[in-house]
Amino acid sequence: MQNKVRIVLVNTSHPGNIGAAARAMKNMGLADLYLVAPKQYPSPEAVSRAAGATDILDNAVVVDSLEEALADCQLVIGTSARERHIPCPLVDPRQAVDLVFEEQLETAFVFGREDRGLTNEELQRCHYHVHIPSVEDFSSLNLGAAVQVIAYELRMKGLLIADAPVVAPKWDVPAATVEQLDFFLEHLEKVLTKTEFLDPKAPRKVMTRFRRLYQRAQLDQQEVGMLRGMLTAVEKCTKVD
Amino acid sequence: MQNKVRIVLVNTSHPGNIGAAARAMKNMGLADLYLVAPKQYPSPEAVSRAAGATDILDNAVVVDSLEEALADCQLVIGTSARERHIPCPLVDPRQAVDLVFEEQLETAFVFGREDRGLTNEELQRCHYHVHIPSVEDFSSLNLGAAVQVIAYELRMKGLLIADAPVVAPKWDVPAATVEQLDFFLEHLEKVLTKTEFLDPKAPRKVMTRFRRLYQRAQLDQQEVGMLRGMLTAVEKCTKVD
Repeated sequence: MQNKVRIVLVNTSHPGNIGAAARAMKNMGLADLYLVAPKQYPSPEAVSRAAGATDILDNAVVVDSLEEALADCQLVIGTSARERHIPCPLVDPRQAVDLVFEEQLETAFVFGREDRGLTNEELQRCHYHVHIPSVEDFSSLNLGAAVQVIAYELRMKGLLIADAPVVAPKWDVPAATVEQLDFFLEHLEKVLTKTEFLDPKAPRKVMTRFRRLYQRAQLDQQEVGMLRGMLTAVEKCTKVD
Repeated sequence: MQNKVRIVLVNTSHPGNIGAAARAMKNMGLADLYLVAPKQYPSPEAVSRAAGATDILDNAVVVDSLEEALADCQLVIGTSARERHIPCPLVDPRQAVDLVFEEQLETAFVFGREDRGLTNEELQRCHYHVHIPSVEDFSSLNLGAAVQVIAYELRMKGLLIADAPVVAPKWDVPAATVEQLDFFLEHLEKVLTKTEFLDPKAPRKVMTRFRRLYQRAQLDQQEVGMLRGMLTAVEKCTKVD
């Protein structure tokens, strides 16, 4: 189960935190670490703080962009401070982990920079935001500690249901991957521009809103196919070519 | 409530871990730190890793023996690796925190040395042992991470009991009504027929699938407006009128 969960660290500044995250993951039975443009990596400090979890560091996938880290994921959960005003379902770590076990999808937990977390654009790529309930006036957790909390909740839930009867995944058709959703949204943008619903010079927040809507719906692959078929039909019918 | 819980670190080797523990405590609303014979303290490394939780370090009580740190406590819970063979109730962090809230006693969570944990003698001073459920072949958590897990569980339980929603999902725009969704779906069907994506003679399950998709997304009113605007734009552009 937990093999389907990856930890994605975005733009980490301190290699020690990457090591601490690897250690926390291995302690809790997680294996897949993705590093998006780490500032300083590989690093002896990461190895030292990993305290033996070097296999996780050795197998870590280092990529340039968040898109690459998420391409084949079906459920993306981003860590967020409470105060962000991005309309997206906000859950606590326990609720987040419940989702992971209910959905049984290829899942990523995304952790932002030590000082600024995730950007709004990065948060918009997430189906859910998870907030670790820190006190308001001292709310920023150490990165390794945040990974520890999520990994711990995953482990607790895994142990809890280990004896429970296996629940059938509720999807009859596989969920769409991040990449499939991205291709659909590109296609949609093209058609919206062609039909002049979208003015490329003044796009406002149209595509942000569409992304939010379709991400929230957690499309399956058949639905993506249907939506793209609809777009192709519209393209064939539009006067302006 | 949480003011009655103290964190006791025994014989800590690395001052950085003391700082990390202080930060984790402050993040989760804990204040009382006891240091039993720390190897190196005070230390700039502790201050650095505390990342602003210096009040906790400044107020930390440094003592020579575990007895002193526990003297006025009524409930003592010691962290332990699973394999210890000391007859003492063993609980997981969630059960430990349940005890704390049920008993409402002056409580100490005791954390041992980085390399060897607590001695048998120290463990015998505890009413309960708490084991953070790590995987068996890589079971030793970083000290700061262990404090983080316990402090997080205390915080979660505190919020749960306070009846405060840990996180409040907020919708900035009112959700669409059933009628608004129905009008949108009718409009969609009209446009899909016009663009010949939908054949009224063989509609298959297209509209059923679209309803399921958009119902699941729980559209808000702004999104319905946007989707209908898109349909209107498509209608204006289609060749067949």
